[in-house]
Amino acid sequence: MQNQGTLMVVSAHAADFVWRAGGAIALYSERGWTVRVLCLTYGERGESASLWKEGKSLEEIKRIRREEAERAADILGAEIRFLDVGDYPIEVTPALRDALVQEFRKYRPDVLLSHTFVDPYNADHPRTAELVREARILAQAHGYPSEYPPIGAPQLYSFEPHQPEQCQFRIDLLLDITPVFDKKRQAMECMQAQEHLWAYYTDVAKRRGVQAGRNSGQPIVYAEAYQRVFPSVGGEFV
Amino acid sequence: MQNQGTLMVVSAHAADFVWRAGGAIALYSERGWTVRVLCLTYGERGESASLWKEGKSLEEIKRIRREEAERAADILGAEIRFLDVGDYPIEVTPALRDALVQEFRKYRPDVLLSHTFVDPYNADHPRTAELVREARILAQAHGYPSEYPPIGAPQLYSFEPHQPEQCQFRIDLLLDITPVFDKKRQAMECMQAQEHLWAYYTDVAKRRGVQAGRNSGQPIVYAEAYQRVFPSVGGEFV
Amino acid sequence: MQNQGTLMVVSAHAADFVWRAGGAIALYSERGWTVRVLCLTYGERGESASLWKEGKSLEEIKRIRREEAERAADILGAEIRFLDVGDYPIEVTPALRDALVQEFRKYRPDVLLSHTFVDPYNADHPRTAELVREARILAQAHGYPSEYPPIGAPQLYSFEPHQPEQCQFRIDLLLDITPVFDKKRQAMECMQAQEHLWAYYTDVAKRRGVQAGRNSGQPIVYAEAYQRVFPSVGGEFV
Amino acid sequence: MQNQGTLMVVSAHAADFVWRAGGAIALYSERGWTVRVLCLTYGERGESASLWKEGKSLEEIKRIRREEAERAADILGAEIRFLDVGDYPIEVTPALRDALVQEFRKYRPDVLLSHTFVDPYNADHPRTAELVREARILAQAHGYPSEYPPIGAPQLYSFEPHQPEQCQFRIDLLLDITPVFDKKRQAMECMQAQEHLWAYYTDVAKRRGVQAGRNSGQPIVYAEAYQRVFPSVGGEFV
Amino acid sequence: MQNQGTLMVVSAHAADFVWRAGGAIALYSERGWTVRVLCLTYGERGESASLWKEGKSLEEIKRIRREEAERAADILGAEIRFLDVGDYPIEVTPALRDALVQEFRKYRPDVLLSHTFVDPYNADHPRTAELVREARILAQAHGYPSEYPPIGAPQLYSFEPHQPEQCQFRIDLLLDITPVFDKKRQAMECMQAQEHLWAYYTDVAKRRGVQAGRNSGQPIVYAEAYQRVFPSVGGEFV
Amino acid sequence: MQNQGTLMVVSAHAADFVWRAGGAIALYSERGWTVRVLCLTYGERGESASLWKEGKSLEEIKRIRREEAERAADILGAEIRFLDVGDYPIEVTPALRDALVQEFRKYRPDVLLSHTFVDPYNADHPRTAELVREARILAQAHGYPSEYPPIGAPQLYSFEPHQPEQCQFRIDLLLDITPVFDKKRQAMECMQAQEHLWAYYTDVAKRRGVQAGRNSGQPIVYAEAYQRVFPSVGGEFV
Repeated sequence: MQNQGTLMVVSAHAADFVWRAGGAIALYSERGWTVRVLCLTYGERGESASLWKEGKSLEEIKRIRREEAERAADILGAEIRFLDVGDYPIEVTPALRDALVQEFRKYRPDVLLSHTFVDPYNADHPRTAELVREARILAQAHGYPSEYPPIGAPQLYSFEPHQPEQCQFRIDLLLDITPVFDKKRQAMECMQAQEHLWAYYTDVAKRRGVQAGRNSGQPIVYAEAYQRVFPSVGGEFV
Repeated sequence: MQNQGTLMVVSAHAADFVWRAGGAIALYSERGWTVRVLCLTYGERGESASLWKEGKSLEEIKRIRREEAERAADILGAEIRFLDVGDYPIEVTPALRDALVQEFRKYRPDVLLSHTFVDPYNADHPRTAELVREARILAQAHGYPSEYPPIGAPQLYSFEPHQPEQCQFRIDLLLDITPVFDKKRQAMECMQAQEHLWAYYTDVAKRRGVQAGRNSGQPIVYAEAYQRVFPSVGGEFV
Repeated sequence: MQNQGTLMVVSAHAADFVWRAGGAIALYSERGWTVRVLCLTYGERGESASLWKEGKSLEEIKRIRREEAERAADILGAEIRFLDVGDYPIEVTPALRDALVQEFRKYRPDVLLSHTFVDPYNADHPRTAELVREARILAQAHGYPSEYPPIGAPQLYSFEPHQPEQCQFRIDLLLDITPVFDKKRQAMECMQAQEHLWAYYTDVAKRRGVQAGRNSGQPIVYAEAYQRVFPSVGGEFV
Repeated sequence: MQNQGTLMVVSAHAADFVWRAGGAIALYSERGWTVRVLCLTYGERGESASLWKEGKSLEEIKRIRREEAERAADILGAEIRFLDVGDYPIEVTPALRDALVQEFRKYRPDVLLSHTFVDPYNADHPRTAELVREARILAQAHGYPSEYPPIGAPQLYSFEPHQPEQCQFRIDLLLDITPVFDKKRQAMECMQAQEHLWAYYTDVAKRRGVQAGRNSGQPIVYAEAYQRVFPSVGGEFV
Repeated sequence: MQNQGTLMVVSAHAADFVWRAGGAIALYSERGWTVRVLCLTYGERGESASLWKEGKSLEEIKRIRREEAERAADILGAEIRFLDVGDYPIEVTPALRDALVQEFRKYRPDVLLSHTFVDPYNADHPRTAELVREARILAQAHGYPSEYPPIGAPQLYSFEPHQPEQCQFRIDLLLDITPVFDKKRQAMECMQAQEHLWAYYTDVAKRRGVQAGRNSGQPIVYAEAYQRVFPSVGGEFV
Repeated sequence: MQNQGTLMVVSAHAADFVWRAGGAIALYSERGWTVRVLCLTYGERGESASLWKEGKSLEEIKRIRREEAERAADILGAEIRFLDVGDYPIEVTPALRDALVQEFRKYRPDVLLSHTFVDPYNADHPRTAELVREARILAQAHGYPSEYPPIGAPQLYSFEPHQPEQCQFRIDLLLDITPVFDKKRQAMECMQAQEHLWAYYTDVAKRRGVQAGRNSGQPIVYAEAYQRVFPSVGGEFV
C-alpha cells in the first residue's frame, strides 16, 4: 500500500506515546500512514520508579524501557527512534533542536502529536512541547540549513496529560479509537513496570468515549482527547 | 438532490448572517444542504443608522431591512425566517426561547452558527449566543414539551464578530470560501444602507484567506473564521 | 451527639447531589454535622430521559425521582427538601431567590456546595451556582428582610461537573471519601433510571483518588474534586 | 468657566462613588468639567449594617444615606441623582435601562466610570456594570427612541472593587489624585456609618500612589486604579 | 529642534519594525523625538524565503535585508542599529542581554516598542519580548554594572503580530497614524522581497483605522494597534 | 520539642522572605516546626539601591544584606542559607537546580513557599518559582542521583508579590498572622536600607487582615495572602 500520510509523535519519555496517543497511532497505522515515534529519553530517571526500587542500574533500566517501548510501537504499527538525551531534566540544546528540525525535514509529517505546554507535575513535558513547536517553525524556514527542503504547515496537537485540569488542557478533539482499542491495551501491557496504569488509562479512554458519544450522538466506546495548537483549515465544519 | 444535511444560522439582526457567515451558507447550499437562517430582529433600531438619518419610519425600515435580507438569503441559497422580537435590546423571553427550541426540533440542524458569547460593542449578540446554546440543550431533552422528537448533538460555532480581539474570539476553524466568494460579495451588496461594509468584509475575507494559506500550505484566497463551542468528535485529525 | 456544623448542598436537579457530592455528604454526616440538601427541581424534564422513553407522565416522573432522591439522601445521612420550581429551564425568580436566602438564614450553613459557574452542556447548573452565590450575599446583609438574623461567611465550593475540561473547572481540593465510598455507591444505585452512571462515577472517584494520592503521598482510593469560590482563611497551610 | 467636558459616575449604592472614584471626581471638577453621579440605590439594605444595628427604619436609613452622599458629592464638586430602585438585589428592568439611556443622551458624558464586571462579594456591582455598558450602546443607536440625539463613544472605566484580586481586576490606569486627596478624605468622612473605611481607603490610595510612582518615575503620593473597557484611541503612547 | 523624547523599537528581524510600528515611528519622528530601531537580526533565515529561492547566499541576503531596513528607517526618520545575532532561532545570551541593557542606559527611551509575549508562529518574537522586558528591569537597577546611570520606568508596548487572535493580543491603544501613513507605505515598499505584504498591512491599517473611528467618534483612516505591558500613569482618563 | 514538620522558603533575594512570608515563618516556628530559608542571592544588585547610592562596594553590600537577613531570620525563628548565585539576573544553571534538589532531599519540606510564576517587574522572581517547582519534581524521582531518598509531595505556595494585580496573583489562602505580627514587624525593621517598606507591608498585612475577617467572620487583624500551586488534599473543606 502506498503511504497515505505521515503522523509523527514526539514523546518526552519512552512510554508517554502509549498512554496518551496509542489509539491515534494504531488508527493511522491501520489506514496506511507511516507513524513515527520519537522518544527524547527512555524516562529512565523520572518514570521508572519501580525499576529503581528493584535495584536496577541506569543502563539496565534504559535497556528495559527501550525494549518495552519497541514492543509497544511494534504492536501499534509505528517506527520508533530514541534520542537518549537524558531525562529529569531534559536539557534543550541547539543540537537537540536541530535533530528535531532535521527529522521533520526528512520525514515530513502531516500531523504532529506531542505534550501540553503547561504541566506542573512534569517539567520535561512542556519543555518538549515548546521544542516541537519551535522545531516545526524552523523546519518551515527556507533559510534554515538542511539537506532537505522546508516543510509545509503540519497541524500540531497536544495529547492528554495525566491531570488535565491542572494543565490548562482544553479538549478540541475527541478521537474515536474504538476500532483499535485492543491494540492500545496490548501496547499498554508491554509496560511491565507500570501495571497500575493499564486500568487507569483504560478508564480514561472509556470516559472520553462516553463524552465523545454525548458530543456527537454516535456510539463510541473508547476515545482519546486532543488539544489543537493551530486553527483547522478546510472546507467543512468538523 | 436529496437533502445532505441542515445548517442553521441564528442571526440577532437582519444582516449579521451575511457579513459573518455568508460564505459558509453559500458553500453548504451548493453542496445540497438545507440552509436556514433565523433572524431574531431586522436590526431596525441598532443597525440601520443611515435609514434613520434619512427620516424613514420604523415600519419602513423593518420592511427595507427585511427585503434586503431576503434577497441576500436568496443569493446565498438559504431559507430565511424573521422572528421580529425587537432589537436594541433583544429581550429574551420564555416564548422566544421556546420558539428556538421548536425550530431546532422541527428542522433538526446538523450544524448551528451564531454569535460570540462576549461582545462589549453589542449586547444583543452575546444574548443571542446564550439563547442558542440553551435552546440547543432544551431541544435535546426528552422531557421538553414539543410535537417533534429530541435532537442529537449538533456542533455549534461562533462566527467572527466585528472586533474579534475585544470579544475573546479564538479562531478554531478557517473555512475556505474561495469557491463561493462571489456569491458572498453579491449578498453583501444587497445591504444598500451599509455600503461601507462591503469593502471592509471583503478585506476581512482576504486576510483570513492569507492566514488559512499559512496554516495549511494550501492556495486559499478567501476564508471565514469560526470558534467551536464543543469539541470535535470523529476519527480524523482535522 | 451535638450538632458539629451544617453542610448545605444546593442541587439543580434531584440526582446531582449524589453523583457530585455524595461522598462529602456521607463524610460530614458521619462526623455529626447536619447535612441538608436542597433540590431546586426533580430533574423531571432534563435528566429523566429513560423514564420519558418508558412513557411515564410528568407527575409520575417527579414522584419517582423524588423517591429515589429521598432514599439516596437517607443512605448518605442528609435531610432533603425539594423546591419543585421546574427544570429545563430553571427560571430564577425573586421568590426563588428569597426562598434560598431564608433557607440560609434559618439553617445557617458553615459550608455550601453547588454547581460550577460555567457549563455549556447544562444551563440550569450555572444559573443555580449564580443563584446560590447571590443568595449567600443577601443572607449576609443586615437590611435584608427576614425573621432570622444575618449569616456569617460560609465557604462556597463548586462540585465537579460532568465534563470538567469544558467548564473551566479548576481542582482546588481533592476530598478523601475512601471511608464512605460504599455509602456513595449505594446512594448512586438508588437512581434506577441512570444505571449507566454508577460505573462512570465510580471510575471518576477512583481517578480522583489516584490524583489525591499523587498530590499528597497518602494512600487514598476514592476522592471527590471541588473548586473553591472564596479564599480559605485560617492559621494553616492546607 | 465654560464646560470642559462631562464625567459621569454610575454607582450601585450611595457611597461607592466616594471610596472608588472620589479622587477622579474632585480632579475633573476642579478642571471645570461637569461631574455627575448617578446612584441607583442608597445602599440601604446591603451597605448600611451599622444603621440597621442601631434600629433605624428603612426610610430613615435611606434619608441618612442620601444626605451623606449629597454632602460628599458637594465636597467633591459633583451633581448627584438618586434613582432609588432598591438594592440587594438591584433588579434590572427595561425602565431602569431606559432611564440610563436617557441620562446618557441628555448629559452626554465624555467619560463613564462604574463597577467591575466580576465581583463574587456583591451581585449588584457586576449587574450595574453590565447595565451601564448596555445603556451606553443603546444611547449610541440612531433608532433608539429619545428626545435627545445619539451619543458618540465615551470611554468606560471600571473603578477598583473592594477585593480586586477576586474580581479579575486588571489595572490599566493609575490616576494621580495627589492634588485633590484632601477633598476625597473629607468626602469619605461624610460617611458616618462606615468610619472603618476611612483609613482603609486612605491606605489603598497610598499603595496605589507608591505603585504609580514606581510605574512612572514621578513623585505621586495618592492614586486611584482603573480598568479600561475599550481601547484608548489617539495620537500618543499614554 | 531640541529632542522631545526618545522612542526605541526592538525588532527581532529586519522588517518587523516597518510592518508593525512604522506609523508610530514616523509620527514621533515628525514630532521631534529621537526614534531608534534595534534589529536583533536581519531575518536572514526566517523571513527571506524569496531570496533563498532566488539562490542568494547568506551574506548577500543579510546585505540586502540590511539595505532595505536602512532605507525604510531613513524614510520613517529613525536611527537604526543591527546586532546581527543570528535568527531562527535567536539565542538569548548574557552578552545579548547586556547589549540591550547598555543601549537602554545610553539612549534612555521614554517609550519602548517590541513584540508580543505569545506567538505560536514565531519563537523569536516572544523571546525578544521577554528579553526587552528583562533588559528594561536590569537597566533600572542601581547595582547593574554600566558606565551610564539607571533609567526610569519607560512604558513598554507590544505591537500587533501577524495573527493577533492566536497570540493573546489585546488591543489597549489604537494609535492614529493617518497623518503619516504615506511614509509607512513608502517604507513598506522598501521591502522588495515581501511585496505581498504591502497590501496586506495597508488593509490592516485601514481596519484598525475603522475601529479607531468607532471607538472614539473621530475621523481616523489608518491606525496601528498596541498592547500595554504596564499600567498607564497620569492625571487623565485616556 | 520534637520537630513538628518542616517549612522551607525559597527567596530570590535576601529580603523577600521577610516582606512576603515573615508571618508564616514566625507562626510555624512558634509551633515547633523547622523553618528553613534559602536565599538564592543577597539582592545585591537589584534590591539595594540605597546602598549603591551611598557608594558601598559590591562586597560591602552583600555583607550588609547578609547580616540583615540573618538578624531577620533569627527574630522569625528560621535557619537561613545563602547560595550567593548572583542576582539581576539570576542564571538558572544545572548546578543551581541540583543544589535545590539536594536541599529538598536532605531537609524534606512538608510545605514550600516561593515566588509567583508571573512578575513583569522582576524577572528573578518567576525564574525562582519555576526553579523551585522543577526541583521539587526532580526531588520526587527515584532515579535522580542523590545520597538522600526521594521526597513525597509537599504543597507549594506562591507568596504575594509587590503588585499582585499585574502578576496574575489569585488569593487561595489568607493566613492569619495576628499572633506573630510583632515579630514580622521587628524582622522588617532589620532591613535598614528599605525603611519605606516597613509601613507599606504593615498596611498590606492590615488590608489582608480585613479581607480575612470578611471572608471568615473571624476577628483577624493581620494576614498574609498565598496562592496554591497544587490542589489541597484531605478530609475537610478548608
